[in-house]
Amino acid sequence: MPEFDLIARIKARASSRPDVTLGIGDDAALLRMPPGKLLVVATDTLNAGVHFPIGTAPADIGWKALAVNLSDLAAMGAQPAWCTLSLSLPGSDAAWLDGFLDGFLALADQHGIALVGGDTTRGPLSISVTVHGLVDDGAALRREGARAGDDIWVSGTLGDAAGALAQWREGQPVEPALRARLERPTPRIALGIALAGVAHAAIDVSDGLLADLAHVCDASAVGAEVDVDALPASTALHATFDDVACRGLQATGGDDYELCFTAAADQRDAVACIAGDVGVRITRIGRIVPGAGVHAHRADGSQWRPVHAGYVHFE
Amino acid sequence: MPEFDLIARIKARASSRPDVTLGIGDDAALLRMPPGKLLVVATDTLNAGVHFPIGTAPADIGWKALAVNLSDLAAMGAQPAWCTLSLSLPGSDAAWLDGFLDGFLALADQHGIALVGGDTTRGPLSISVTVHGLVDDGAALRREGARAGDDIWVSGTLGDAAGALAQWREGQPVEPALRARLERPTPRIALGIALAGVAHAAIDVSDGLLADLAHVCDASAVGAEVDVDALPASTALHATFDDVACRGLQATGGDDYELCFTAAADQRDAVACIAGDVGVRITRIGRIVPGAGVHAHRADGSQWRPVHAGYVHFE
Repeated sequence: MPEFDLIARIKARASSRPDVTLGIGDDAALLRMPPGKLLVVATDTLNAGVHFPIGTAPADIGWKALAVNLSDLAAMGAQPAWCTLSLSLPGSDAAWLDGFLDGFLALADQHGIALVGGDTTRGPLSISVTVHGLVDDGAALRREGARAGDDIWVSGTLGDAAGALAQWREGQPVEPALRARLERPTPRIALGIALAGVAHAAIDVSDGLLADLAHVCDASAVGAEVDVDALPASTALHATFDDVACRGLQATGGDDYELCFTAAADQRDAVACIAGDVGVRITRIGRIVPGAGVHAHRADGSQWRPVHAGYVHFE
Repeated sequence: MPEFDLIARIKARASSRPDVTLGIGDDAALLRMPPGKLLVVATDTLNAGVHFPIGTAPADIGWKALAVNLSDLAAMGAQPAWCTLSLSLPGSDAAWLDGFLDGFLALADQHGIALVGGDTTRGPLSISVTVHGLVDDGAALRREGARAGDDIWVSGTLGDAAGALAQWREGQPVEPALRARLERPTPRIALGIALAGVAHAAIDVSDGLLADLAHVCDASAVGAEVDVDALPASTALHATFDDVACRGLQATGGDDYELCFTAAADQRDAVACIAGDVGVRITRIGRIVPGAGVHAHRADGSQWRPVHAGYVHFE
């Protein structure tokens, strides 16, 4: 199938939006910005064998390629609007592409984000997505806004994706509930939007809670105290790993794409209310303190040290 | 070097702009759109061994990765504003990254485009860039605007990049002037901007003149007649190849990143004036006709047939 047929195949299935003046098929897309909004742009690439195992179902790859990008918009409190897709494929495989689009476009349609352009090239399997969102000027959630005294919160449960990966690496059968979290992460878009203007700082948990929280602390010039026994875990994680392993996965495992955010302690009820409204479980796991660095402790106050501190792409 | 050090190295060298509210270093960039403009978005990926030979100098790779994207903005008549960069690298090599940034940022600074975010991951060498530009509502150059009776124009000279590639593939020493066109293409930004609102349709020549012009014809539901003897060639191309080879390279060779555009015949003087103002040579090579398809002929009116019709990524 020539490149142009691949593009036609993608174009035929992609939804549009009224603010897309020109979508797939020209040299570039033309998009209409609403007044008073800031444009929010993030980009993330998934490579076969690095970000997903060779042989992952194409629909799961498509879902995840968009999900990890939407998660960045969620962490800014932004409303998704448009995305582009660069696909590098070893060959031209219509069935693979159709499967990929099943996953990608299912998630795109869920969030009303229009695929407006992209690129298909020959090369090792790699998917690069750029997402565009909108946020009210002044309301965006930045990493640099955390203040001493803030509560630290996290959405959903932690460690599930890393648990699935640990089972897969050890050649064990992977618990389905954990596998679903690894392959089909849920970007916390509604929560992020609802927290915009309320939370002080936010980040999505992609490299591991402690590693990602450290980025917030660095950017905000503050420290953090985290109670690792307060970290939320799924029933599946508890049923699969012992307590020590669970804590390690929760505190340092990546790929969960939950939101970690900070908010003033006097906003505790407002934050709980927001989470209730959007139907997302949130858990208070610590507080921001003066100083620097992330200090993890057990419920009894004793220090907790991770075996490794989060996923590092280059070592 | 960990991923975060790579990002810090990039951030330290990237220029900003006043409309960048938040650049490299958060989950996403925050950008301020001027009122009355449309957002123009294009994305293109370069893979090692596909879009450039293994062993290409990193500075040339950096230049070209941005140039091919800027060329898409030029073809829309858009003013460059912001870009993101997704780098997949087999390893972490500070010297390689510095060289890459030398080329990438030299071109970025030339066009006042700010690098506002991106992603660095492990994987086979691949560079995915997304560019954002601005254009007045209604002035963008689309492929679909060509009308029967329009002149067809092309900027610069054609076939140089394909000539360099042909020499390289045959193991010959590559003529330096041709190599420069392959490795450091010039996106025709100023020409594209000046033509916005004047030209009827435009495309950049990346796959080969006849192939790219065919896209304009398809999108506009018109045909085209092209005089292959009128196609502009550089002195270096003429000095390196015989006339038959030259014509083939000019008509079907890709990677020149010149602009091919159409404009009303009564705008001939205005178009020539615009090109003079921006200092870019343009050549009238044919006309748009009713019907479909691109018909290439010699100066004597006899039909001309390409040996192959342009670069196809998947066959």
